[in-house]
Amino acid sequence: MTPLSPTDQLFLWLEKRQQPMHVGGLQLFSFPEGAPDDYVARLAGQLREQSVVTPPFNQHLDYRLGQPVWVEDKHLDLEHHFRFEALPTPGRIRELLSFVSAEHSHLMDRERPLWEVHLIEGLKDRQFALYTKVHHSLVDGISAMRMATRMLSPDPDQRDLPPIWALPPRVSGGGEDGGGSLVRSIRHLLGESGRQLGTVPTVARELLKTVNEARKDPAYRSIFHAPRSMLNQKITGSRRFAAQSWSLSRIKAVCHAYGTTVNDVVTAMCASALRTYLMNQDALPDKPLIAMVPVSLRKDDSTGGNHVGVILANLHTDENDPEKRLIRIHEGMQAAKDRYAHMSPEEILNYTALTLAPAAFHLLTGMAPAWQTFNVVISNVPGPDGTRYWNGAKLEGLYPVSIAMDRLALNMTLTSYNNQVEFGLIGCRRTLPSLQRMLDYLDDSLTELEAAAGL
Amino acid sequence: MTPLSPTDQLFLWLEKRQQPMHVGGLQLFSFPEGAPDDYVARLAGQLREQSVVTPPFNQHLDYRLGQPVWVEDKHLDLEHHFRFEALPTPGRIRELLSFVSAEHSHLMDRERPLWEVHLIEGLKDRQFALYTKVHHSLVDGISAMRMATRMLSPDPDQRDLPPIWALPPRVSGGGEDGGGSLVRSIRHLLGESGRQLGTVPTVARELLKTVNEARKDPAYRSIFHAPRSMLNQKITGSRRFAAQSWSLSRIKAVCHAYGTTVNDVVTAMCASALRTYLMNQDALPDKPLIAMVPVSLRKDDSTGGNHVGVILANLHTDENDPEKRLIRIHEGMQAAKDRYAHMSPEEILNYTALTLAPAAFHLLTGMAPAWQTFNVVISNVPGPDGTRYWNGAKLEGLYPVSIAMDRLALNMTLTSYNNQVEFGLIGCRRTLPSLQRMLDYLDDSLTELEAAAGL
Repeated sequence: MTPLSPTDQLFLWLEKRQQPMHVGGLQLFSFPEGAPDDYVARLAGQLREQSVVTPPFNQHLDYRLGQPVWVEDKHLDLEHHFRFEALPTPGRIRELLSFVSAEHSHLMDRERPLWEVHLIEGLKDRQFALYTKVHHSLVDGISAMRMATRMLSPDPDQRDLPPIWALPPRVSGGGEDGGGSLVRSIRHLLGESGRQLGTVPTVARELLKTVNEARKDPAYRSIFHAPRSMLNQKITGSRRFAAQSWSLSRIKAVCHAYGTTVNDVVTAMCASALRTYLMNQDALPDKPLIAMVPVSLRKDDSTGGNHVGVILANLHTDENDPEKRLIRIHEGMQAAKDRYAHMSPEEILNYTALTLAPAAFHLLTGMAPAWQTFNVVISNVPGPDGTRYWNGAKLEGLYPVSIAMDRLALNMTLTSYNNQVEFGLIGCRRTLPSLQRMLDYLDDSLTELEAAAGL
Repeated sequence: MTPLSPTDQLFLWLEKRQQPMHVGGLQLFSFPEGAPDDYVARLAGQLREQSVVTPPFNQHLDYRLGQPVWVEDKHLDLEHHFRFEALPTPGRIRELLSFVSAEHSHLMDRERPLWEVHLIEGLKDRQFALYTKVHHSLVDGISAMRMATRMLSPDPDQRDLPPIWALPPRVSGGGEDGGGSLVRSIRHLLGESGRQLGTVPTVARELLKTVNEARKDPAYRSIFHAPRSMLNQKITGSRRFAAQSWSLSRIKAVCHAYGTTVNDVVTAMCASALRTYLMNQDALPDKPLIAMVPVSLRKDDSTGGNHVGVILANLHTDENDPEKRLIRIHEGMQAAKDRYAHMSPEEILNYTALTLAPAAFHLLTGMAPAWQTFNVVISNVPGPDGTRYWNGAKLEGLYPVSIAMDRLALNMTLTSYNNQVEFGLIGCRRTLPSLQRMLDYLDDSLTELEAAAGL
């Protein structure tokens, strides 16, 4: 029996019918060499036999003296958690994304361990997929990505690699995925009192007091400058997931041409796609959109402390010229990093937390604050180096499926794998119609930057 | 804009994460003669073109002055409502039932019209299925069944039959599906005040007062006699659906042998299956289980009024002998019908409503009342006569998918079609483990009765 941390409790509190708080990952595999046509069905049979479930996947939510705790589920029903499913004809990536869109919209059963793994057959070209869904209170996004990587091997000949729910438990454990999270920012701002979170109204009141004080402080005034946009409306319960891979070599060639980082280029791709999308919706704000971008602040000589900060990246969506837009984004990101370089760890924590606080306040109360600190989340999560295999099946791509929230209707999460940058976009299907078109706009943006650089 | 009736509002109030309030229907079809192998994919393409959506399927929930109303959805997204999906290998009925179990567990998006139609390919033997899901606040179970029948034709050569969401609206409209429903019983007991339902606590208090008075009244005392059982626990959010057809000729042969009705025999089959299931779970109560069985009370000379009553059928699950059990069930059903024959319409309404009130009280408050009036719902809904086709595809079977509720973890709904009796069992997957075994027990029961009758 393990009590839930206050942070993990918040993920349960924040969850509502139209705002599920689970994260997901989509892994696309190709059949091993020489595998039979019914390979996926056989794999499903083997996975059904993997009935020994290891922590945290064997833990379900319970209450002791009114406090939420994780306890071992004595009646774990693997058939509920592991599901073998199929795509309809013609089994393209489009059908796969539809499948994930629908599944990611569904709340999970709170009486059971909060995870599901869907093995998906019916993809064209001898491919199959795994869609894994885990509640954020059980595993955070980065830990989930690490686990999904731990079940893979660089060796195509290695067998007996267990599924994620049967991995041997790790000694060190997670917990230290760092900041950059709305919920962690709440906890930091509340300090010690956050460790004994009382009720949501109390938390919200404390948060509002802190934020209102910060708004008068010149050091933080620059935080409150994001425009209103259609990305920042209330959301509904149904999701659209869109995902695609781009070659890291192409992106690196653009970096070299302009003297920017990979992160600058992918941020500029997102900026350009958002600009085109909003223009087509006749909804581009005059003022530039602001993205919240978590960044690693780890220095080689640092010890302990919180190593993730957030940058409020000006996306310069008011700028028509793609090259100028990239350069300005690069300059802004660089300036933000320089500012962080001169901050103490305590100052970094404060700045990060205050940046996230208005969004957190809205999440807790449902009230739209009079100020918006950012319009969209663009998160880049490190992925595995080099090719990976799962019992001989080559991992072709992996795409993060994150969380859309009220007033943050779109989340763009990226990861890297095998000389690819993998984009996973999750959004509210009603607030953001035809969200999948952003994939075309992302591609247009990269092509445009290549052309401008004469590549 | 149409205000929701108080009854329909109650279905929204009663819904919670682990208790969705939608009803469903599963229709199994075979391919038309000479249809190509990709028939279902082509059908999906044709159905996607059916973008004119007729009432009530174009109505979504909204609020005006705090009151729920149905308004036309101006941004209806057919892709959200109509879904083309596939079963995994090997595409047996078992995979179909798994699919429906999972889908029926998911809440629907309240921002949109509350219905979904899933076209399912990948079944063996050139078959396909339609699973239709409609919120009970939009359409009640019997109306849904009627609509599902209206889209079919007795003529295998008829084409251009629209899907359910594009049916021409009916002039008469529904609303008069009669009693037998928990929610309608609440409304009746509250009389005029029920027409302006205030808050749930008010409704519950009024209900409790009425029920407590009835308990002292000798005329109603017999209502409060059901034992406690595992069927009457709190439920979780995940469902198991089990369905199968039995030949009406076999059932009628048993009827003739024992001089009972078809309804008596199917009730005895349910009784026997419940007895075996609970014995195997070591959970058969000493006292016999009581089923709530809605019955039609329409007489040829009656005009108006409520024509559905409920019978509290003693299932005699304490009786070991299957023949004696059937006979006793028959006698009990007959006695209940005779009692109804001597009641005035007002008395019928009161009796029905009071029978259902303790369950309704529990639903509203979450409190388990000290008395249980019945353990399980066994409902027999009339189906179409003769063979039906949908644009040349023969309907092979249709199975109702009803609602499991707190303290009523199992619902057994039956219908008739083309010389078959179709059973649809829906239950909470955790409260009632391996519920699907009931299908075997139902079959065993019929075989046993046949053998005893020397058939």
